[in-house]
Formats: sequence, structure tokens, C-alpha cells
Amino acid sequence: MDSFNYYNPTRIIFGKNSIKNIGKEISDAGISKVLIVYGGGSIKSNGVFDTISKSLSKHAIEYIECPGVRPNPTLEHSLAAAKLAKENNVGAVLAVGGGSVIDEAKTITTGFYVDNIWDVFEKKVPITQALPLFTVLTLSGTCSEMDPFAVLSNEAEQKKWGSGSPLWFPKVSIIDPTVQCSLPWNQTVNGAIDAIAHTQEFYFNGTNQEMSSSIGEAIIKTVIKSVDALHIDPASYAPRADLAWAATLALNGISGAGMKGGDWSSHGIEHGISALFPEVAHGAGLAVVFPAWIKYCMNENPAQFNRWAKNIWGVDSCDEAIGIMKAKFKSWGAPVSLKDLNIDEKDIENIAKNATMNGSLGAVKRLDYNDVLQILRLAS
Amino acid sequence: MDSFNYYNPTRIIFGKNSIKNIGKEISDAGISKVLIVYGGGSIKSNGVFDTISKSLSKHAIEYIECPGVRPNPTLEHSLAAAKLAKENNVGAVLAVGGGSVIDEAKTITTGFYVDNIWDVFEKKVPITQALPLFTVLTLSGTCSEMDPFAVLSNEAEQKKWGSGSPLWFPKVSIIDPTVQCSLPWNQTVNGAIDAIAHTQEFYFNGTNQEMSSSIGEAIIKTVIKSVDALHIDPASYAPRADLAWAATLALNGISGAGMKGGDWSSHGIEHGISALFPEVAHGAGLAVVFPAWIKYCMNENPAQFNRWAKNIWGVDSCDEAIGIMKAKFKSWGAPVSLKDLNIDEKDIENIAKNATMNGSLGAVKRLDYNDVLQILRLAS
Repeated sequence: MDSFNYYNPTRIIFGKNSIKNIGKEISDAGISKVLIVYGGGSIKSNGVFDTISKSLSKHAIEYIECPGVRPNPTLEHSLAAAKLAKENNVGAVLAVGGGSVIDEAKTITTGFYVDNIWDVFEKKVPITQALPLFTVLTLSGTCSEMDPFAVLSNEAEQKKWGSGSPLWFPKVSIIDPTVQCSLPWNQTVNGAIDAIAHTQEFYFNGTNQEMSSSIGEAIIKTVIKSVDALHIDPASYAPRADLAWAATLALNGISGAGMKGGDWSSHGIEHGISALFPEVAHGAGLAVVFPAWIKYCMNENPAQFNRWAKNIWGVDSCDEAIGIMKAKFKSWGAPVSLKDLNIDEKDIENIAKNATMNGSLGAVKRLDYNDVLQILRLAS
Repeated sequence: MDSFNYYNPTRIIFGKNSIKNIGKEISDAGISKVLIVYGGGSIKSNGVFDTISKSLSKHAIEYIECPGVRPNPTLEHSLAAAKLAKENNVGAVLAVGGGSVIDEAKTITTGFYVDNIWDVFEKKVPITQALPLFTVLTLSGTCSEMDPFAVLSNEAEQKKWGSGSPLWFPKVSIIDPTVQCSLPWNQTVNGAIDAIAHTQEFYFNGTNQEMSSSIGEAIIKTVIKSVDALHIDPASYAPRADLAWAATLALNGISGAGMKGGDWSSHGIEHGISALFPEVAHGAGLAVVFPAWIKYCMNENPAQFNRWAKNIWGVDSCDEAIGIMKAKFKSWGAPVSLKDLNIDEKDIENIAKNATMNGSLGAVKRLDYNDVLQILRLAS
């Protein structure tokens, strides 16, 4: 196992009927006014907003609403939200949603203090301050509820970039799996594939880390079992809960301990796709890119790729395992090729350019523009 | 999965040559004087103390030494250490050692503020204050480096009790597995069995927690693989590192998520043993008690016990798995019966009385005095 630092101070409150605790948690932190950030408004129809609103009122916490966060959240919306937070002088941000909402909320916590949050993503301005962040998770996948990272899209410049700071760890995240029982199926699948991808980004960079590799396998296999069970009964609580907690563990630091920071080129390539095609969900893009990346890189670290083939998919050949994984994704209704995403062969060069805009990608194998091009061709 | 809260703010710095970071960590926390708590003095001969001393000096941190912590740390020593801490008005406690040292250090952090720390263990006084705690781990097993719990023995009253508080989470724990390469073999084994026991205390209380059960299996299997490898080459780094990290994960909250708090009667019974026989190491006592507890309780939650037999030991019968586990412990040189601990049949009643002094034990099955007696007979 390689050296590592592990630090994760986020408090998780997990389980049925846990959302009603949000008011007390915010009140205990001495905060009396929050900006509630959310997306398309499903939380208004499914009772989540109502539960939160009552809990905040009970603890005399004022709130300002900031709806309209998009999948692949945008700089434009983040800037407007930070302005709203400043005008109302809130003491914290409360994100209610999935990874996109929480990611944007993180950018708002620091956007409250800086002129333009994009300067942070461009590394021109360091993150030295942030409002406290609380989250109520409604879609598992990204682990944004228990990590210090955020991804933001600058549409004008066609850039989708990540940033992070220990100040961006949520103080408290509430995960009630029951609110995910009524999710559209493709959102469940996209979240699950994102969780598998996070685990694999660390896993394939492993060499002799028995503990972290075994945990990676436990997470991936739990995700697969859970999605298979939910495919039959989407409202079943036990697999919803397992999937939710697996997705959190996939990127809260546990699966990556001693894994030298992971690889992350599949994520880099996917960001190239969704920077140019914002309608592509992150998990859908990963379902397409990751199998192609494995095919391209599997001879770089063969022992670990073969371990993955055997321990996850029960076969000796990595090629065969890739086939089984794609068939599994397909059985869940996920795309497995660029064609499935309605992306043409002619767009591949632009995606590869975008993905390598800041230089080469990855750790298992360093990938330049031409490597990415070949991976995208394998994914066509 | 059942509802749970997860919170663990301890920062882990893990790897070769990591001990030299201790001065900076303490200095970054704004602390300029610490009480260094340690045990028998092996840290003076193996270079650990020297590394720490240099690192503290480099950051202008004064220190007062408090050696002499015993396995099964005592109230008497804790009180003397707290007095020393008060007299010197230290700003933090630095524990250098294994679980006993860190446990006692936790009691000192609050002993600094209260008249008699035993009042805390008797639940007469709540834990409302604690000095910051830093640790350098030299023996993996208890997870005291990343949990908020401590066990203390009151020799005069023959009581060995536990307590805990979020204030007792170490701020920073440094784990350099290389310092464990030269441990006496029985200490390595005792730590490993403690880690297996912690995992199992949660695991056997599971019903439908796929994620946490899988993680429990990953931890137990990693511990077994690591000890087997160290039995051949005790100085091998990779299994030392895997064993160390597995032992931390066994009780830092990850293996217990959604497991309804675990069972803990094997620990309770073991505390009864080592309260009366303080020379018995905690891990050695658990090696004797746990197989007997499984035998006695395996029909209470058969699906999970059978899962354990199959996924850990590769057999369908739980009885057979118990036999394999005992043979494995024995192959490591661990005791597997009370006789191996030099405890007579005639002492069993006193142990059972001590273990159930505060009432019945356990969750998988509630155990009263007579149940404990029968388990101890199975362990004879």
C-alpha cells in the first residue's frame, strides 16, 4: 500500500425519515439563515421540500430559495446564486439534490467570498474561505455529499473543470434512500455507473493494496447487486440503501486509500464529452468511455486488470470481462457506445482536443491527444 | 441497511517515514507544549522517540514525558498522568504506542479537566472537555487511533470498563507500518485478532446490509492474508500496511455502518477475563471467547453466520468454520481455550459475574450470567 492521507470530517445521517433532522443540525451550528439550492423542482412535488421547510421553521431558520441548477451545473447559474447569497447575507448553503446541485452549492460557498468563482477553477485564486455547506441527497452517485470536490461548466468557453478544497466538505449530509425509490430509472443507473467508475478510477491504479482493492471489489459488486435488484423492484429499500452507501464509499476516501490518487482519465475524457454535449449525463458518458479505456490500458497493469476480471466478473480474461460489463450496463438500459449517445465519429477529434486541453491524462498510462482519440474510436 | 450516523474527523497520515510529520501537525494546531504518553520504552530503542523528539524540536514544541502505560491501562496511572499534564499546563496529549497507550491518553485528555476520570467511566460525570489528542501508532489492532473510545481498568475495584466521546477522536494519527515490522510475534497476532473481533462484533448483528457485510468480509480476509504472509516474513511491508489499515477500518465506523451498533458481548466477556487476569492480552482473550460465542449464538441469526462460514472460510457449515478459525488462530500461536490462558474451570463463575456486573450483554442474543457461564464452558 502506498502512503496516503485520509481526512473526511463530513457527518452522515443515513436512513428512513432522516431528512427532518436538517433544521436541528443547522441550528446546532449556530446558523439562522440559509440559501436552499436545488434543481428542477421535483423536491416540491415529492414532499422533500416540505419536510425541510418544516424542519427549518421549527428551528427558526430563515431560507432563501435558489432553484434551477442544471445537470452539468453552469458558471452562469453559480454566479447568480452567489449574488443571491450575498444580497441576503446567508450563513450557510443547503443543497437539496444530487451531485450537480451539491457541486454547484460548493462553488457558491466560496463564490460568496470571491468576485468570480471561475478564477478558482482556473487556479488564479485559491480557496481560502467558504460558507458552511449542508446537504440533503436525493440521487446517489457522485459522492459529492461526502467529498471536497466540485465540477463546474463554463458554457461560454466550453470548459467543464473540477476543483476542490477541504473547506468544501459538507458539514452534514443527510441520506434518506426512500426519496430515491421514485427516481426515473436512467438516473438510478447513471448514479450507479458513476459510483462504479469512481471505484475503478482508484482500483486500476492499484498494485499491491490488498485492503483497498478488496474494498473496491466489495463496492462494485454491491452496486451491481443493488441495481439488479432495483431493476426488478425500484422501490425496494434494502438495495436502495446499499446502492446509496456504496456510492458514498466509492469516493469518500475509503476506496482510494493507498491507491496513489487514482487514474481519472475516464473522467477526464467524459468531461470532454459533456463539455461539448451538455445533454449527456455524466454516468451515461462514463458507461461509454470506461470499457474502452480498460480495453486500451489493460496491458499496463495486467495483474490488477485480471484481478478485476476474476473477482468482479468471474472470468479469467479481461476482454471477456469488458464484454460482460457492457452487457450488464446495456441490460440496465445504459448506453455503451458513442452512437448510443448520438455522438458522431466526426465529433471525436473535438472531444479529444477538449479532454486534453490542459495536457495529458491518467496514471495507469499517460494519455495524450492521440491516445484519447483511439479510446474514443474504441467507444464509437 | 439500518439507519446510522457516521462521523469521524480524525486525520490519518499513513506510510513509510510519516512519523516525522508529527511536529508540523501539532504546530499547525497552535500547540506549543505536549505530554508524551508511552509504554514500556521500546520507542526509545527503535528510533521512534528520536524521530518524534527531533520533529517536535524543529517546530519549537516543548514536551514532558509520561512513560509506563501498561497493557490494560490503569486508573492509577491515568490519574498520575493527568496530574503531570495539569502541573505542566500542556496544550495537548501525544500518545505514542498501541491501543493501551492511546486509550489511556484519551482518559488523560479529559482527566486534565475533571477531579477523577473514573467518575466518567461510572457515568457520574459527563465528558464536556478534552485536550486535543495526537497519536503515533506502533501496534495495530484496537483502532483507538481512529475511534472515540477508551477502556480503563480500575484495579482496586477489579473493573475494566469502556467510555467514549466525540471529543476523544484523535485530531491526527500517524501510522507508519514499518515500525511494526520488529514487533514481538504475539503482539502482531493479538492486534490482528482484535481487528477480526471488532469486525465480527458488527458483522454478526447484520441482516440485510450487503455493503457493510461485504466490507466486513474484505477486512477479515485481508487480516488473515496479511498475518499468514507476516508469519513467513514479519518485516514484509505490504502485509504490514494492509494489516494496519484493515485494523483501523475495523472500528472507525466504516465496518459498522447500518449494523445496529453491533453485538459486543465477546468484548464484554473478554473484559471480564482481563479484569480478573490483567496479564491476559485483549486479543488473546478474544481468540478464546469469540469462537465459543459463535458456537453458542449461531442459530440466532443463521443466514449471517452461514454467510460468514461460506465467504470467509469457504465452507457451508458454521461448526466447520469455527473449527477452521480456531486452527488458523492456533497456527499463528494464539490461545484458543481458557486452558491455553492458564485459567481454571473454577474461575469461570467469577469471570461470568464480572462480565455481567452491569447487566446482560449483546444484541444477537441477550446474554445473562448463565449464558456467559455456558460460553465460558465452551471455551474451556
